[in-house]
Amino acid sequence: MQAVVYRTARHLEVEARAARPPGPGELSIAVAYTGICGTDLHIYHGDMDARVGAPAVIGHEMSGRVADVGPGVDGWSVGQAVTVMPTRSCGRCVACRRGSSHVCHAMDFLGIDSPGAMQSYWTVPAELVLPLPEGVPLDHAALVEPVAVAVHDVRRAGVTPGDQVVVIGGGPVGVLIATVAQLHGARVLLVEPDPFRRAVAGEIGFAVVDPQATDPVTVVNEWTDGAGADIAFEVSGSAGGVATAVDVLTTHGRLVMVAIHAQPRTVDLHRFFWRELELLGARLYRRDDMVEAIRLVAAGDIPARALISRVMPFASVDAAFAALENGDGVLKVLLDWQAAAR
Amino acid sequence: MQAVVYRTARHLEVEARAARPPGPGELSIAVAYTGICGTDLHIYHGDMDARVGAPAVIGHEMSGRVADVGPGVDGWSVGQAVTVMPTRSCGRCVACRRGSSHVCHAMDFLGIDSPGAMQSYWTVPAELVLPLPEGVPLDHAALVEPVAVAVHDVRRAGVTPGDQVVVIGGGPVGVLIATVAQLHGARVLLVEPDPFRRAVAGEIGFAVVDPQATDPVTVVNEWTDGAGADIAFEVSGSAGGVATAVDVLTTHGRLVMVAIHAQPRTVDLHRFFWRELELLGARLYRRDDMVEAIRLVAAGDIPARALISRVMPFASVDAAFAALENGDGVLKVLLDWQAAAR
Repeated sequence: MQAVVYRTARHLEVEARAARPPGPGELSIAVAYTGICGTDLHIYHGDMDARVGAPAVIGHEMSGRVADVGPGVDGWSVGQAVTVMPTRSCGRCVACRRGSSHVCHAMDFLGIDSPGAMQSYWTVPAELVLPLPEGVPLDHAALVEPVAVAVHDVRRAGVTPGDQVVVIGGGPVGVLIATVAQLHGARVLLVEPDPFRRAVAGEIGFAVVDPQATDPVTVVNEWTDGAGADIAFEVSGSAGGVATAVDVLTTHGRLVMVAIHAQPRTVDLHRFFWRELELLGARLYRRDDMVEAIRLVAAGDIPARALISRVMPFASVDAAFAALENGDGVLKVLLDWQAAAR
Repeated sequence: MQAVVYRTARHLEVEARAARPPGPGELSIAVAYTGICGTDLHIYHGDMDARVGAPAVIGHEMSGRVADVGPGVDGWSVGQAVTVMPTRSCGRCVACRRGSSHVCHAMDFLGIDSPGAMQSYWTVPAELVLPLPEGVPLDHAALVEPVAVAVHDVRRAGVTPGDQVVVIGGGPVGVLIATVAQLHGARVLLVEPDPFRRAVAGEIGFAVVDPQATDPVTVVNEWTDGAGADIAFEVSGSAGGVATAVDVLTTHGRLVMVAIHAQPRTVDLHRFFWRELELLGARLYRRDDMVEAIRLVAAGDIPARALISRVMPFASVDAAFAALENGDGVLKVLLDWQAAAR
């Protein structure tokens, strides 16, 4: 079989490897599509070398079909369409003991801490595998994991019908949050400086603001008759995004922190006090978020066609990463594994 | 009658003034005690001149007895012990319309925006007056307003029995939050650099940490078996306090922002993301918080004796403000108005 292996910063290799047959409690999956995530880019840049034990097969967004069923595993049939929840909690740490296992302190994240999805056959614990309804296009199903992130974020925000929601950052996760918030009855405004991303969001049907041309706070104040937004999602990872998210909120508004801010940011805490605002960190997803994400993708509620900018053969992985790095008119890029030598 | 009048920065004057008789819907209160709040100090320093229309009678923490009942006001009798909720919302702004009237955007704060309690007779709208149970010492009752702040903060934090709570800042509000949290069943650790304040908190019975001698994060980690605290209250107003509050929290922990941070602070947003922390701004109180505060003071649940460092005649107002400014061994200072020429 074939695998994409991270060797060292900016060095991915497509290698022929022997598939690992499923052991007890495991399933082997013939991978159909893998998505490339921001985290995969971080790994590619060498920023996660301390965690990723190179050489490592990366990737955690995927769809595929059951290829082989390990001993003691029931309820699965070969050929069945599936995706994988790539997080495995330890069950012993403080977070797990307190019912917060999805942010386990000793998380095994498949594709980071252990072998990932970018290989023709992926052998994983059966309890991490989730069935896909028949008929779901497998390219769309490769979006289930990022959709689960959005489902979790919107759940955490407590979005209710009629809420006016500002999403700061129009990458794949930002657009997915906007989509899921809208499905919850929210009215959504998306803030994004990149013209391509704005165009995609606009085509999907979202109101979009270019923060470099117009002050988003002014726009939101007009949009909300001076009240401010009920909820802001910070998905940009930028200092300016944080400031905007705080400044657009109404009294008792909620800011959901989705993006990774590697460095501390200055925050107007006085406004938090004065308006009794809330800041909520939101990370990953629970299993029920994955199940809901599958339901949304299967129902056609996710604008998968607009989000999937390119589908490239796995052998073109270098070009796929380069496209994402250059940001040249792409949102989500998928690798297609269906033609891989099995 | 007599009044303390703010003229300009660092200039308070005790003046003889004519008492204003109560108009329709008003009560006149013979003031017994007034507390001096951090906000009164801000006014004294000239920091709030844009809002306070000098010359102005300041003060908003008080107790007293009904002296005169205006036309159309029922249910009050002369001599009845009372306190006043000093905030009056507009009923029309966005906050009021959305049920958040206690953080009204056009708040009339008595003692800031309109005449305050530091006068022998205070004439106020009857709907702001709250009865005190007979027998409550009136000096203790002058603490009701800051106790209501603590009640509101603890309510907002959602403190539940067994929670491990860190209070950063051991001034009057910090000690009151610690007290109310403990009454809700929390275990409390108080962080305070000032030795006098630490001594008072220790006498009341709180575990106290000197952040200049010991790292509070280390102490909290030991105290919680490595888990971190469930809730942190930032009451210090310092940059270091914010950092400590974020660093002591467990996964899904909550930081309640009580202090006023006039300048933006750097915040470790990555930790908010990673541990799914929450930040909650908390300001002032609702009427039910005032009612609960009265109940707690009347029940003797508030360590009033330890908190009230000095009771000084109103004519010594300069000395009272100086004592607070110098921080020389005082927590709460009360002015006694009972000997005032009426």
